[in-house]
Formats: sequence, C-alpha cells, structure tokens
Amino acid sequence: MRLGMVGLGRMGANLVRRLARAGISSVVWDRDPTAVAALAAEGAEAATDLADLVRRLEGPRAVWVMLPAGAATEDAIAQLATLLSPGDVAIDGGNGMWKDAIRRAALLRERGIDMLDIGTSGGVWGLARGYCLMIGGPEAPVRRLDPIFAALAPGEAAASPTPGRAAGADPRPPHGYVHAGPNGAGHFTKMVHNAIEYGMMQAMAEGLELLEQAGSETLPPEHRLDLDVPEITEAWRRGSVVASWLLDLTAQALAADGALSSYSGRVGDSGEGRWAVQAALDSAVPAPVLSAAVYARFRSRQSGPFADRALSAMRNAFGGHLEPK
Amino acid sequence: MRLGMVGLGRMGANLVRRLARAGISSVVWDRDPTAVAALAAEGAEAATDLADLVRRLEGPRAVWVMLPAGAATEDAIAQLATLLSPGDVAIDGGNGMWKDAIRRAALLRERGIDMLDIGTSGGVWGLARGYCLMIGGPEAPVRRLDPIFAALAPGEAAASPTPGRAAGADPRPPHGYVHAGPNGAGHFTKMVHNAIEYGMMQAMAEGLELLEQAGSETLPPEHRLDLDVPEITEAWRRGSVVASWLLDLTAQALAADGALSSYSGRVGDSGEGRWAVQAALDSAVPAPVLSAAVYARFRSRQSGPFADRALSAMRNAFGGHLEPK
Amino acid sequence: MRLGMVGLGRMGANLVRRLARAGISSVVWDRDPTAVAALAAEGAEAATDLADLVRRLEGPRAVWVMLPAGAATEDAIAQLATLLSPGDVAIDGGNGMWKDAIRRAALLRERGIDMLDIGTSGGVWGLARGYCLMIGGPEAPVRRLDPIFAALAPGEAAASPTPGRAAGADPRPPHGYVHAGPNGAGHFTKMVHNAIEYGMMQAMAEGLELLEQAGSETLPPEHRLDLDVPEITEAWRRGSVVASWLLDLTAQALAADGALSSYSGRVGDSGEGRWAVQAALDSAVPAPVLSAAVYARFRSRQSGPFADRALSAMRNAFGGHLEPK
Amino acid sequence: MRLGMVGLGRMGANLVRRLARAGISSVVWDRDPTAVAALAAEGAEAATDLADLVRRLEGPRAVWVMLPAGAATEDAIAQLATLLSPGDVAIDGGNGMWKDAIRRAALLRERGIDMLDIGTSGGVWGLARGYCLMIGGPEAPVRRLDPIFAALAPGEAAASPTPGRAAGADPRPPHGYVHAGPNGAGHFTKMVHNAIEYGMMQAMAEGLELLEQAGSETLPPEHRLDLDVPEITEAWRRGSVVASWLLDLTAQALAADGALSSYSGRVGDSGEGRWAVQAALDSAVPAPVLSAAVYARFRSRQSGPFADRALSAMRNAFGGHLEPK
Repeated sequence: MRLGMVGLGRMGANLVRRLARAGISSVVWDRDPTAVAALAAEGAEAATDLADLVRRLEGPRAVWVMLPAGAATEDAIAQLATLLSPGDVAIDGGNGMWKDAIRRAALLRERGIDMLDIGTSGGVWGLARGYCLMIGGPEAPVRRLDPIFAALAPGEAAASPTPGRAAGADPRPPHGYVHAGPNGAGHFTKMVHNAIEYGMMQAMAEGLELLEQAGSETLPPEHRLDLDVPEITEAWRRGSVVASWLLDLTAQALAADGALSSYSGRVGDSGEGRWAVQAALDSAVPAPVLSAAVYARFRSRQSGPFADRALSAMRNAFGGHLEPK
Repeated sequence: MRLGMVGLGRMGANLVRRLARAGISSVVWDRDPTAVAALAAEGAEAATDLADLVRRLEGPRAVWVMLPAGAATEDAIAQLATLLSPGDVAIDGGNGMWKDAIRRAALLRERGIDMLDIGTSGGVWGLARGYCLMIGGPEAPVRRLDPIFAALAPGEAAASPTPGRAAGADPRPPHGYVHAGPNGAGHFTKMVHNAIEYGMMQAMAEGLELLEQAGSETLPPEHRLDLDVPEITEAWRRGSVVASWLLDLTAQALAADGALSSYSGRVGDSGEGRWAVQAALDSAVPAPVLSAAVYARFRSRQSGPFADRALSAMRNAFGGHLEPK
Repeated sequence: MRLGMVGLGRMGANLVRRLARAGISSVVWDRDPTAVAALAAEGAEAATDLADLVRRLEGPRAVWVMLPAGAATEDAIAQLATLLSPGDVAIDGGNGMWKDAIRRAALLRERGIDMLDIGTSGGVWGLARGYCLMIGGPEAPVRRLDPIFAALAPGEAAASPTPGRAAGADPRPPHGYVHAGPNGAGHFTKMVHNAIEYGMMQAMAEGLELLEQAGSETLPPEHRLDLDVPEITEAWRRGSVVASWLLDLTAQALAADGALSSYSGRVGDSGEGRWAVQAALDSAVPAPVLSAAVYARFRSRQSGPFADRALSAMRNAFGGHLEPK
Repeated sequence: MRLGMVGLGRMGANLVRRLARAGISSVVWDRDPTAVAALAAEGAEAATDLADLVRRLEGPRAVWVMLPAGAATEDAIAQLATLLSPGDVAIDGGNGMWKDAIRRAALLRERGIDMLDIGTSGGVWGLARGYCLMIGGPEAPVRRLDPIFAALAPGEAAASPTPGRAAGADPRPPHGYVHAGPNGAGHFTKMVHNAIEYGMMQAMAEGLELLEQAGSETLPPEHRLDLDVPEITEAWRRGSVVASWLLDLTAQALAADGALSSYSGRVGDSGEGRWAVQAALDSAVPAPVLSAAVYARFRSRQSGPFADRALSAMRNAFGGHLEPK
C-alpha cells in the first residue's frame, strides 16, 4: 500500500515520515521543491506535479491533501476530480469547514471517486506520539486504508483500556482513530475537538491567572498569597482531576519561563473555534464556554476597542466619570 | 421639615439643591469647608462638625449620609449612633454593600434610632431630572420623610402611566421612588439596578462595535458596510425597542465625538456590579450577562494578562504556533 | 405618492394603516384574501395578485415586501424582478439576513430596479408609536420615498433633542429613521438592533431574578429580603439609569401578573440574534453578552440536555457524586 | 510516624488505607462508630472521641481533619486548639474556604500549634491512583510530615517527566504534591483546581452536545450527521490535544450508557466553583469560562426560572409573541 501526499508542511511531511517508519511508502508533492527534495532524501518518491503524483500511484489510489483550508485545498480537490479514476480515494485532510467537505465529496462522487474528510490532531508531537484521526466518509475506503490509519494513530498502549468497553467493539477507537460518520463527520468532529481544546485552554488560563494574581497588591494584605504557579501545575499533573496533556504542556512551558515573559498575550485562532460556535447557533445548543474561549482570543488582539470606548463615553455621560489611569 | 446632609460631593450637594427648590431646607456638613461654604451661599445652614449638625436639627431628626461607601460611611454612621436620639433617622445613602446596611441598621436600632438605606440613581442629571430612590427600612420613617423623597424624585410626569396598574396602588413608585423592603432592600435594589445598567451598557457597546467593524478590511469586499454609527443611534432613540436613557446619552456622546477618539477604553467599575455577581452566587441564580459586563471592564484595564500569555504558551507548546503580529 | 404592500400580516397591515392616516394610499396584496379584504374595507386598493398589484401602480413604482424572511421573501423579490420596470423600487422589509439583501439588490440592479432593505422596529406598538426604520440602499430612491418614511417614523416629538447635535445634520435620524448605508446596511443595522435588544432583555431578566430570589429560603435568614419586584420596576421607570421602553413594558407586564405565572419560560428567538453572533465571528468582535442572551433562550427550551447529563456522568465517574434532587 | 484522622467518610477512610499500605499507621475517630469499627478491623487504632485520639498520639502530633467544610470542620479545629500542644500540627483537609483556613491557622498559631490547609484531589480513585495534595502553611511541619504526603501522592511514575524541569528543583511536585505557599494557599489552590475542572467539564459537555445534536432534525437534511459520540471520545483519548483524565472518565461513562439516559441532567456544585468566581471578583481577573461553568450548573437545577418568564413577558409585551411549544 502506498499513499500520495500533497502538501509537505509540518503536518504533511510528518505524516509521511510516520508512515515510512511503519513501512508504508509515499509519493509526495508540494509546490515548494525544497520540501519535496527533503522528503525524497528520506526515501519518499518525489512527484513533479499533481498529475505526476497521480500517475506514479497504482489504482485504486489514495491521495491525501494536507494543505491550508480554503483556496489551496479547494484547488487541489478540484484538480484531483479530473486526475483520479473511479475507485480512487481523495483525502481532504486540512482543518477545513465540514460543509465544504460535504460539498467536495458530492462533487467527487459524481465521478465515482470516494472522498474522506479527516481531522488530524497531534500537532508538532504527532510524529512521535501518533495522530488522533477523525474520519468521515463511506465505509469501504475507510476499511481499505485501515493500515495507513493504524500506522498513523498512537496505538492502544497510549492510554489505559476503558473499563466496561464491550469486548467486540470496533477496535479502531482504542487505537486512536475513529470512523466518525459520513462525509463531513471527520471535519465536524475535529472542529468540535478544537473547540473543546479552546475551552479547556481558557479554563486553565483563567485559573492560572487567579493563582498568579493571588498575591496582588490590590488585595488586603492579610489575604495575599504568593503562589508558585509552575510548581502547582507540575503537581497537578499527577492524581488531580485536571490532569491532561494540555496541563503537561503548560507545566513544561512554565518550567522554562515561569512568568511567561516571552509571550505578549496576543492569541491566534484558526477557524474551528468560530465554526463550532456557528454550529451551536445552527442547532440551538448553548455554548457559553466555547464562545467565551473564542472571544477571549479576539479580545487579546485588540487595544482600546470601540466597545470599551463606548462604555467609557456612557459612564462619562451619565455620571461624569473619568477613565481610570 | 428639615434635613441634615453629611457629605457635599456632587450627589450630596445636588440633593440639597433639589430639596431647596421644593422649599425644604437643609443643615449641611462636609469635612471640606469650601463645600460647606458653597452650599451656605446658596441658602443652606452650615454646620461646623457632625455634632453641630445634629444639634442644629430638631427631633425627630433625619440625617442623610452621602459619603463614599466603606470607611467614610462606616465612621459617620458610628458617630451618628452616639449623637442621635431615639426616634431620629439616619440615612445610609452611598452606594454601600447591602449586608453592611443590615448590620448598621441593627446597631442603630439597639439605640432606638431608625436607619434607612437608600439607593439613589440619577448621576449628574439628577438635579434637573430628579432622583430614582430605592429605600430599605421600617415603614414609619419612610412615611414621615415622604415629602423629602417626593421632592427628590422625578415625579409622575417623567414617564407615561403604566397601563393596567391598579388604581389604589402605592402612589410612590409612579413618582419614581419605592419602599423596596426592610433594611438592606434599598442598597440591594440599587446594586441590582447598577448590574442591569452594566449589562445594558455592555449590550449596546458590543452592538456598536459590530456596527463600527461592519466595514472592516478583514471582511470580504462584497460584505463590507460603512455605517454611520452616530446617526443610527440617533434614529434608534425613537420608535425602536432599544429606546432608553442610556441610548439617549450614547447618541449624545457620539454626536460630540463620532469615533469616540477622546476615550482610551479603560472602563472603571464600582462595587455594585461585583456584588451583584456575588449575590447571584449566593442564591444560585445564573447571571451570565451581568458577569460578562463586569469582566469586560476588568479586561479593559489589562494589557497582556497572564491568562492570555498562558494561552500563547500552550499554543506554542502543542502546535509550534507563534503569536500573531 | 402611492405604495404597493405585499404581505398583510400584523406588520404589513399596520404600515398601510399608518400611511393612510398620513394621507398616503396603498395598493395591497396578500395570499390570504381575507387580509386583503380587511384592508380594502379600510380604504386600501385591493390587488388580486402580485402582477395585478404592480399594474395598479404608476411608475416609478415602490413595492414593499413585508413577508417572513426566507423563501416567501425570496420568491416575492424574484417575481418583482420580472414584474417591475427600470426605475422602480422594491423594498425588502422583513427581518431578513443582510447578506441576502446584498445578493437580491444585485439581482434587481441588473434589471435597472433599485432595492432598499429596510429594518423596521416597533412591533405591535408601531401603528400608534411610529416605526423606527433602518434603510440600506442607494440614495436616490431613499430620497424619493422620503414622504413614506417620514409618515411611518415616530417623528421628532417622540424624544427630546440630542444636545450638541449639529444644526445642519441629516434631519431623518431625529425623526426616527436613518439611511444607514448601502444595500445590506438596513438589515445589518436591524440585526444589531435586535441583538442589543436581546442583551438588554437578558440583563433585565437576570436582575429581576436576583430581586425575586433575594428572599430565597436557601439564604441565611438574616440576609433574606422580600422585595416587591413589580413596584421596583415601576419606580425605575423615572430618573434611573435603566429607564427604557423595555422597562416600561416590563413594569406593565408585572403590573398585570407580578409572579409572571402565566408564562412557562420557554423563550423564542428569531434569526437576528444568531446572525449577530455570526457577524461577531466574521469580524472578530468579542460579543459575550449578545451570545449569552441567545444561549439563555436556547437553554430555556431544553430539558435535561446532553451537556448537563454529561456533567452528571463525569461527576459520578470521578467523585461518586449522585445527582441532587 | 503516626497520623490522627478525624472524619472517616470516603476521603478520610481511604487516606488512612493508602497510608497503611505504605506502612504508616493511624489513630482514627468519627462520630459514626461503625465507620471507626470498619477501619479498626483493617488495622487502624480506634479512638473513642477527639480527646482520646489526641491522647493516643505522641508529640509532636499530626491530626488530619477530613470533615465537611463549614461547621463540622470549624468545631473540630476549635476543639483541637484546646486539645493539642505546642509543636503539634492540625491539618484542615476538607474543601474549605481559604479565608477560613487563614483565620483558623492564626487562632492555632496563638497557642503554638501549626496548621496546614491541604486540598486533596483524587476522588473515589485516589486510593488506587494516589492523591494530588496542595499544601498551605509553614515549611517546618510540611517537611516533618513529608513521608505522609509522599505516601499519599501518586508518585513520579504517574506521569512522564516534564522536559526542561531544573535538575535540583523541589522533588515534591513531580511526586504529585506541592507546598503551594503560606496558610490559605492549599485551599486556594484546590479552589482554583476545582474551578478549572468545572471549566474543562463544561467545555467537554458543550462539545459533546454539539456532536450529539449534529444529526438534529431541525437541521437541513444535507447537513445532518449521525455521529457515534462514545466512539469519538474513545478515539480522542489517544494522540489528541484534549486527552485528559476527565476524557478517560467520559469515555468510560459513555461506554456504559451511550445516551446518558441514566442521568437527568441536574448537576450539583460544591463551594469551590463559586469561591473561585468570588476570587476573580476580588482580584479583578476576568473569568468568563469559570463563571459560565458555574452558571450552567445553577441553570441545570431550575425549571422555568423567573428570568426566562420575564423574557417571555417582554416578548409578548412588545411583539405580541407567544411562547413556542
């Protein structure tokens, strides 16, 4: 079994590498020739363009598109619609909008080509730790590509077995990948995953600020507490209810820079957090925490926004209040 | 009927002035002699200290303490506990914590002195517009001081009658003041009033920012809208569902400075918003909007807080993400 | 000047009536003949279908579509695109999505027909109180139809003048209507108006529950306060910072049913609140209060949602906690 | 080294058991004699009352109070103030308010008795998994009782080492316990831990509901997704960013009852979540997620609250809207 990989950024390149370690070879292409050359030097087969990549694979082919969501992915899938043959599989692997995945899959299906939309979690650690894969699409190509998914996933040893899980249940989830549902389900599930991630991060961030501000001079002296935030996070990693991979990384970041003085506090957000809020609106699900986490990031990138100036103006208008220094 | 007024800041002084316009004279004191002299020049009777103020009034006396909440009010009430006589009334008129009012009233009651806790809304406009008074305490002194409250309140003409209001109902609320309940009720009601005010202001502020950002260059060109925010708020003042005094003031502020460029966006908060959230916690009432309004003000005064730096650190740790510029 | 009105529900019919009072006659049509007959009995000219309505008007025509947002409006505008002539104006007057208005206007413009998207606030009170109109589209048809808008709007007397407003400024906003910007601006502005309305309502609702729960038996006896919520809202109508039309209506509702026992607490929402949150996501504007207000309504219609059952399940899993009774 | 344990509920009894496994014996007392007898049968030394428990220990003594926060703990600490001798240590081990711990420690210090306030995380799993301990108080008793803490904590093997942690750093945090700071720091840190826990749980709960509602019939058919929520959570346990102990437990709960139909969705809350919000108010830290998590629990226990009925009443008043079915 061989895979075509389109897009050799950090994610795409490391997927190829993790497959290679499991003995699965890849044909690779990227518009940046140095990225192609780098992987070719590691043993992957280099293609000169997307058509060449398709030609180098035997049917039924599997081509994984790991490009930024939006125009780049849209173009590549559109090209694959003309380059691939019935029975082939195209994988929409970026952090795309799930409704786009449904639309793209329908387009490919008209030509007899299957599409899988796959959400991939693992970040810079995935090469070593394995990738959690959330797969949407028809069952047949999921089954056919199972060796690829199994090689990418972390494997059962990555966590203890879940007590009470039925013996004959699907073996994939305990290996760290899941056939979540029909097309769209992969990206939808990844979107929700990322929104939960945002919420967990924000919960921790608020808690850490409470700890860091516990000694604030604005508090009465008898209630000030100087706390060692890095050591507290280290202790929480074991035995506490908040033990988590995010906490592991937080403790690591605080071990390196206890005051986090190397960060300015401008926090980026990618599309998934926003899309999850839109999904909440679509299905009338209250999502206060997921929204608050997105808004905290928006706010982190603002300075003196119109809303706050409007509050000051109103306070001045009714009470003669001046802005505090 | 005469009133003793302790504390001649903006609120105290204007209460005296509005009473004078209604023919009710006051004995006044403030630790700042120029404040006393200013009101004396307008016809009020000047006292040299708190004891002198009490002496100059005939029993049953009414002394209104209009000082900052906290130590200043605490001291004045404690002194009045020794200076006043049974049957006198002390008024705790600042924006105090309602539990303090309950405690102070119990202290005075032991000496036969009544206390009223009064929340006063109206700000810098109260002198002309009248004050909305929220009164807590026993019925007898509320009834005795009714002419004072009636003179301070805006009066029935300030709003149209409420359809369906019972004919024989208490005439005070339609005049703009209310005996809200026992001691504590005045300050509790004012606390809730201010929390609602925070929430309404935040709702408007968010909406105004949406209008102001509707033409943002980050949006697709076909969806950018350049909107005239000041003119929109002016139009909303008539016939819309959001018509309100706060909107009147907002339209006024925007007429003077459409871009609100004279404000930095650092928004102050006094205690009532926080106390209202604490009351919500005490009685297990969900208060997401009231809390969000308080938090927006906290956030407006921060720059690069620990929470946001922690988010950046986590994002860097799991995904190698750098902070956006 | 005459107007064609399509859709004679509460809003459409009352717009016709308010115009008639100002001496502006209308040609009316609705798919429900009894609605047409009712207005014809009041003096409007009845049309038998949309084409007939167009025929009965002289060019340049103005046809106001006041139908539910979505398919009904979409159909009517599409028909008008073929029935109207260059120089005519179609008005998209429902609570539609602003991006739809932009799209529809472009379609009509190709045929030389102008479109105005108008947000109309006023509800069941608009006939008597006047309608606040938020208008998007090109300047020429706005100017031409000014007598219609002026007749529908509340007029200057509905509020006191805004101090500091420039003498030569646009006279429309002080009459209660505004040309907010290009196509889309009318519905966008109405969307934001409604979101602010949701936020203000939620602020009041939370505050009222705090008042109502102040005497809760779960509180320590010395801190329980029995408050008269209806009387407090009546007093707030005059002189307070929260004075507003929504408060007037709240006081009215509480005068009729102080315990609000005729309501179950299931709260509907129309699209504008959700769209406003989507606009906040589009432009990266933090909107915690507008979102919380939408979520409170979602939550009000749920019973034992999956999220809450999941919390119970987790609490049981890590702490052996049983659900409280 | 021996420990006195007061309070043999689930937490207290299991602490004794885990110590016994490490060869540390305890003298135990509870007002329920059967609880005492049960542990005595397992080898603990039974005391007949608190004074007897103190008598049975040799100085310098260590007595751990593991009772419900509030009156029970207050009484026990007050008694220990008279029963213990200078140099002894009392441990305030319940989920108490951190300001109470500061007050109690000051009381004991006057008599030469040290107090430690310890937050203990681990729930029903602590006996097997170990307890994460957050300790506040002076250094000397922390050092003296180190063998006890080390025996209770999970130990280093419970998580992988934190990369970059300094070699000579305090060895306690990597074992799962931390001397967080002076008195109050233990309970403050536990309070923040629990608030983060609430926030993480709520983030997950919202995400799970999004997954569960992805197939809702209110959505357009082409966008409905039937997702297998239990299998998704199982897959997330490995390699994903949200991997965490809470997720492990969630997957376990969903393996047993995929629809969570054995839960009603009434969610309890103990004091820590509320206290954390109060701490946020005290130190002006924005805590939208921590608050939202608390409010979601409040709301889960309500049915048709006043706030929602007020919203319905307002909607009816301005728009004639009836409540949806």
